[in-house]
Amino acid sequence: MANLDLMRELAIENDTKIILLVLDGVGGLPMTPDGLTELEAAHTPHLDTLATRSICGMSTPIVPGVTPGSGPGHLSLFGYDPLEYEIGRGVLEALGIGFDLQREDLAARGNFCSLDSEGLITDRRAGRIPTEVGAALCEKLRMIELPGLVTFVEPVKEYRFVLVLRGEGLYDGLTETDPQQVGVPPLPVEPLHPEATATAEIVNQWMAEARKILADEHPANGCNLRGIAKDPGLPQMPEIYKLHCGAIATYPMYRGVAKLAGMDVLPTGDTIETEVETLKQHWDEYDFFFFHVKKTDSRGEDGDFDGKAKVIEHLDAVLPDILALEPDVIIVTGDHSTPALWKAHSWHELPVLLWSKYIRPDSVPQYGERPCMAGGLGHILHPDLIPLAMAHAGRLAKFGA
Amino acid sequence: MANLDLMRELAIENDTKIILLVLDGVGGLPMTPDGLTELEAAHTPHLDTLATRSICGMSTPIVPGVTPGSGPGHLSLFGYDPLEYEIGRGVLEALGIGFDLQREDLAARGNFCSLDSEGLITDRRAGRIPTEVGAALCEKLRMIELPGLVTFVEPVKEYRFVLVLRGEGLYDGLTETDPQQVGVPPLPVEPLHPEATATAEIVNQWMAEARKILADEHPANGCNLRGIAKDPGLPQMPEIYKLHCGAIATYPMYRGVAKLAGMDVLPTGDTIETEVETLKQHWDEYDFFFFHVKKTDSRGEDGDFDGKAKVIEHLDAVLPDILALEPDVIIVTGDHSTPALWKAHSWHELPVLLWSKYIRPDSVPQYGERPCMAGGLGHILHPDLIPLAMAHAGRLAKFGA
Repeated sequence: MANLDLMRELAIENDTKIILLVLDGVGGLPMTPDGLTELEAAHTPHLDTLATRSICGMSTPIVPGVTPGSGPGHLSLFGYDPLEYEIGRGVLEALGIGFDLQREDLAARGNFCSLDSEGLITDRRAGRIPTEVGAALCEKLRMIELPGLVTFVEPVKEYRFVLVLRGEGLYDGLTETDPQQVGVPPLPVEPLHPEATATAEIVNQWMAEARKILADEHPANGCNLRGIAKDPGLPQMPEIYKLHCGAIATYPMYRGVAKLAGMDVLPTGDTIETEVETLKQHWDEYDFFFFHVKKTDSRGEDGDFDGKAKVIEHLDAVLPDILALEPDVIIVTGDHSTPALWKAHSWHELPVLLWSKYIRPDSVPQYGERPCMAGGLGHILHPDLIPLAMAHAGRLAKFGA
Repeated sequence: MANLDLMRELAIENDTKIILLVLDGVGGLPMTPDGLTELEAAHTPHLDTLATRSICGMSTPIVPGVTPGSGPGHLSLFGYDPLEYEIGRGVLEALGIGFDLQREDLAARGNFCSLDSEGLITDRRAGRIPTEVGAALCEKLRMIELPGLVTFVEPVKEYRFVLVLRGEGLYDGLTETDPQQVGVPPLPVEPLHPEATATAEIVNQWMAEARKILADEHPANGCNLRGIAKDPGLPQMPEIYKLHCGAIATYPMYRGVAKLAGMDVLPTGDTIETEVETLKQHWDEYDFFFFHVKKTDSRGEDGDFDGKAKVIEHLDAVLPDILALEPDVIIVTGDHSTPALWKAHSWHELPVLLWSKYIRPDSVPQYGERPCMAGGLGHILHPDLIPLAMAHAGRLAKFGA
């Protein structure tokens, strides 16, 4: 696996264009032992034609057997070693609701909970209160003032919210308040290193104020904070790869992760068609496009095999419009598998298709899991993909004399 | 390759059952360029049917080209990086004879040798004295008393024995006495770090006493100690993987290595049938079973191609009884190859078969080396196997949010 320092050393600029087309959760499984996967079952004439002109293979997002969350799955696609670079849960949650997180903000995922008269947790999710109840409670928590800081309390869904503290001198490296069990009180936040001591006190102060404000609410008379974290300060893709990077995604979390990696987030709509429009509009401005299709994953999580296949067919239908832009390199893959059979992210490898004028063609006749198992790329790792794209775009200098 | 810390972080408990079926030395070679391997030649209808429903591939025990001994071959199967974790030769030798080694025991492999009148080695194996002669000499060496310690001297075979010292404050990190050549005397044991200084003196004292006791024996009038080591204190499988692990093996060494890894060793008999009985008896008690078949390796070492194929057929015949237990995951592979053509352990990859309800099927029609080369798992490493088994058993949580 190439490392970022090597990429930084070898990357050169030219006027080629690369598309990384990510079908979220595209990898699947047959519903019966002798069946087809979602991708194999989908009618995808354009992807299949492209596959016959491409080199294909299978790719592992993290390590064999390990299922990625959306954060590590995308970091890995963007070339980062996902075991080295991590995005904290609070940051991901803030990105997921489209919160405009700043570099020095401290973000936490909040959960409303129920406490008994002694302050012990009786329900870690406060009976899964309706989203509008959670939103009203967030409104109240916004009254908490911390000296020298701006605080944001944003509802997410049901009992979940995001707390963001903005100001100078905030450190991450804090323990969570959630004891992950009932019958015990929320834990105080502890610093994991000395610099974080003052920040821990500030967060504990916020928790004490929140406790008072929520005291008479029912069932959400308490709350917990998890994954208290800052923007991890990732090495930036434009600097590593000398690429102007644009991100096109319909969901906030993927826009957020792309932004953390240094991409410009391009405003777009809710559909694949609007994403293609956005791609066309900005075609001349960028060298690299991250193009994200969300609903393959959503249908997979629902266990909706046919629905997932339909999303793939939808993408296939617009593929000619994308190819008409004449990218120099296009990669089609996913961040992880989400088989309808499994109804969740899974550890299975992703089928990969890589096209450029300079690929070495293999004999894969179709973009699907089984055909790609026999592909010329063999079995690679997600962080290999951008180096391969760069190479096929003539954007990597020779290593050594 | 996953690391143990990641597994420890992600492992979750559920009520699935995993079988790791190890055919020792199963990998083979054709005896003639256009022939079949032992596994390909064996008539294995049940393994072949299972292969058609499984995902298959090839696995490397250590690194390409490197032949494992039984210790590293098994550590690697159990998920340990075999270059990071080592079992000393003395410990393996003690395990190999079924010695009940304790956590703080110091074990050495002993070799009787022949010395001339000046104490120089003339034969490092004392003319390969018969086993019963070696056993009688061990009896004499048991008279050696060391202050505060219990000593065990156990015959192995011919000129080989095991010395075990039991007591407090023993350290490993000692050099060997065997100079690996003739014409020089046995070397004194030296400590490799300061804590081992006293232990080195104790071992040298034992060597001096042994020299006196053996002085009038012929041809075994001396001895050497090699691989002086303690239980390496491996991270324990039940703690890493949250699995209750049971080991079923007919030979002491494999039971011993399994015990070092934290498995419970289940009493069994000498045959594959009794091993299957043991599996059935303990089916409800454990989550993970290491099931070891020894004689594939023995026949390979003998150069007995047909004999090795027959052992494989023997296992194939009992496979339906194993599958009738309805494991959630079963892996079939070997710890290393032992081709009859090579008559020894070899470096060749191992064919791997992985079955679960959640595998992504490939097109491999038969469990054999050539079919598995085209399998959907591609080329993996032995330490990937348990993470893959854990994933397919739903026993690994998602990595990152």
